[in-house]
Amino acid sequence: MAVRHYTLDFNLSTAVECASVVPGLLSIFHEQELAETIHDTNGHGYLATFVGKNGRLVILRVHSHGLVTIDLQCYEEDNAAQLDNLLNSLEKKLKVILNGNIARTKKLPPLVRGAEVDRYWPTADGRLVEYDIDKVVYEEDSPYQNIKILHSKQYGNILVLDGDVNLAESDYAYTQAITGNGKENYAGKEVLILGGGDGGILAELVKHKPKMITMVEISFMVIDGCKTHMRKTCGNILDTLRGDCYQIFIEDCVPLLKKYVREGRTFDYVINDLTAIPISTSPEEDSTWEFLRLILDLSIRVLHPKGKYFTQGNSANLTEALSLYEEQLGKLSCPVDFHKQVVCVPSYLEQWVFYTAWKK
Amino acid sequence: MAVRHYTLDFNLSTAVECASVVPGLLSIFHEQELAETIHDTNGHGYLATFVGKNGRLVILRVHSHGLVTIDLQCYEEDNAAQLDNLLNSLEKKLKVILNGNIARTKKLPPLVRGAEVDRYWPTADGRLVEYDIDKVVYEEDSPYQNIKILHSKQYGNILVLDGDVNLAESDYAYTQAITGNGKENYAGKEVLILGGGDGGILAELVKHKPKMITMVEISFMVIDGCKTHMRKTCGNILDTLRGDCYQIFIEDCVPLLKKYVREGRTFDYVINDLTAIPISTSPEEDSTWEFLRLILDLSIRVLHPKGKYFTQGNSANLTEALSLYEEQLGKLSCPVDFHKQVVCVPSYLEQWVFYTAWKK
Repeated sequence: MAVRHYTLDFNLSTAVECASVVPGLLSIFHEQELAETIHDTNGHGYLATFVGKNGRLVILRVHSHGLVTIDLQCYEEDNAAQLDNLLNSLEKKLKVILNGNIARTKKLPPLVRGAEVDRYWPTADGRLVEYDIDKVVYEEDSPYQNIKILHSKQYGNILVLDGDVNLAESDYAYTQAITGNGKENYAGKEVLILGGGDGGILAELVKHKPKMITMVEISFMVIDGCKTHMRKTCGNILDTLRGDCYQIFIEDCVPLLKKYVREGRTFDYVINDLTAIPISTSPEEDSTWEFLRLILDLSIRVLHPKGKYFTQGNSANLTEALSLYEEQLGKLSCPVDFHKQVVCVPSYLEQWVFYTAWKK
Repeated sequence: MAVRHYTLDFNLSTAVECASVVPGLLSIFHEQELAETIHDTNGHGYLATFVGKNGRLVILRVHSHGLVTIDLQCYEEDNAAQLDNLLNSLEKKLKVILNGNIARTKKLPPLVRGAEVDRYWPTADGRLVEYDIDKVVYEEDSPYQNIKILHSKQYGNILVLDGDVNLAESDYAYTQAITGNGKENYAGKEVLILGGGDGGILAELVKHKPKMITMVEISFMVIDGCKTHMRKTCGNILDTLRGDCYQIFIEDCVPLLKKYVREGRTFDYVINDLTAIPISTSPEEDSTWEFLRLILDLSIRVLHPKGKYFTQGNSANLTEALSLYEEQLGKLSCPVDFHKQVVCVPSYLEQWVFYTAWKK
């Protein structure tokens, strides 16, 4: 049973004495049969809490610098019309009491806390966003990560790995960007996909009749979940691990890349669709950047001299992480040039950077 | 001075006695010198509030059905590291106390309440979303609406009319969709734009050398704000109200449309870029739908028999409002066919429906 948490805030043009605000509101709380507690705030304005009989909790704060905040917590199955009435009454009354002194009123959609289906999946740049998720379609823990597939009315099913939105069925823009925006000629080419367990890239590229696509995905469980629940993304391509012009290896890409380097094998395209680069740049994560650079280095080493390397980067807002990534591109054993592109991937709710790199 | 409001929630696998949770946490609150009040909840679990010396407020609830919620409110300039520590201590301690009984831990990015720059602009389908807005670039009240232009790091400047995100500088996808996805030939054509005060459509279409674009925007203040602050959208097209192949009338489009109908004047393209259709379908708003139908009807009457009518619809999730709109399309004095398209407009944070209509 979830808790709905409403907030209703008033920015005032000038600070007010709580004595002028509070008494006028109390009648509303008393009507609701809420038990009142007034707290000592040590000079930080007025604070009262009101507890109702059905688990309702109201918090009223009149901050001394000119902000009134109201919180209303209730159970999900509580009478929504009654609560709307309560909030509307409070809003109306405050508008009368603070006549002309309100610079802004803000009533947000309620936070739903502890719900069976979690709708809040913050962006990579740390913003609070609510998705229209109504169902958990798939959830498993693999040895590598927590795998969820969530249903959204507008985005279709969404693959979420360790809490990060990876790809939704609406996100053909992602597949387009990471395969070169439809400007590449894959016909007869050798392609290597690192990761890509949702099958989106593979399903797109087989249409172009490449010579062979080799995909290396560490997690069979991701493939297994996506082949059932992300069919708008992968079609039937994941139904078998081997087709006319593709083969999927379920293994860690690093040893395989090292083997290809030893064998001198090259690919016309290397597409890195592994999970996002780490956002934290704290010193204890140096090893993550080193790991990323290792994969980058190996990828470029198996790239044909005229080949292209495509990868996703990060949120366009995470400029520090993007700079660090570009720094790694300058430290490879084989020098590369690169360009980047900002793309709107529908389900991400933030702009995303994609990179193309090639040997100098 | 804003309030940061953190939430930290624990879904439990099985309900617990608050007696087993609360004592272990109290030492943390006491360390923080928080004054405790325990509330009578009439059998709805445990509820305690803790007030600190610097305006901090912590609310701890152990709901009897297996949910623990913690709220932490503090002032914006409060010591963020200390607060992180407090939340981390609470999280760690609860993980020890509830050993193995936690099904989900959720710590959301804090809500920032009462801030000078408001970052929360809910979607048309009513979801809570936080934008990366760091500056109010322009704000005025016209006789028609509240006009804001807000700066977002990733979307550029965003035009917000009466609290609705209208268009950001990143949103060329909107302009493309409402002008026919680049598949129309505007050369030598007569075009009528209803609304369009941000100048995006006008700036796009003049490139195609139409015979004449007539744009009718009711609000000069929208044009005035956009011509200064939305230049990635409008370029210099709004610097003058009249150019080689366009003219902008600052007036209500309805009388003008009626005049055009009387004169028998027609256009090859009519592009309705007025603000979104109403979401509410409550009876008292019937008149809004009637008004919408009037505009639709007049627009189709001034449309050349082989012309096309483009308009934005609504959030893809507002299926009821979309159906009602399509119902209006069936009630026009001149029968039309239509199709619709779902488009990702970057700054909307939701999928949006666009319509194309033409005379049967």
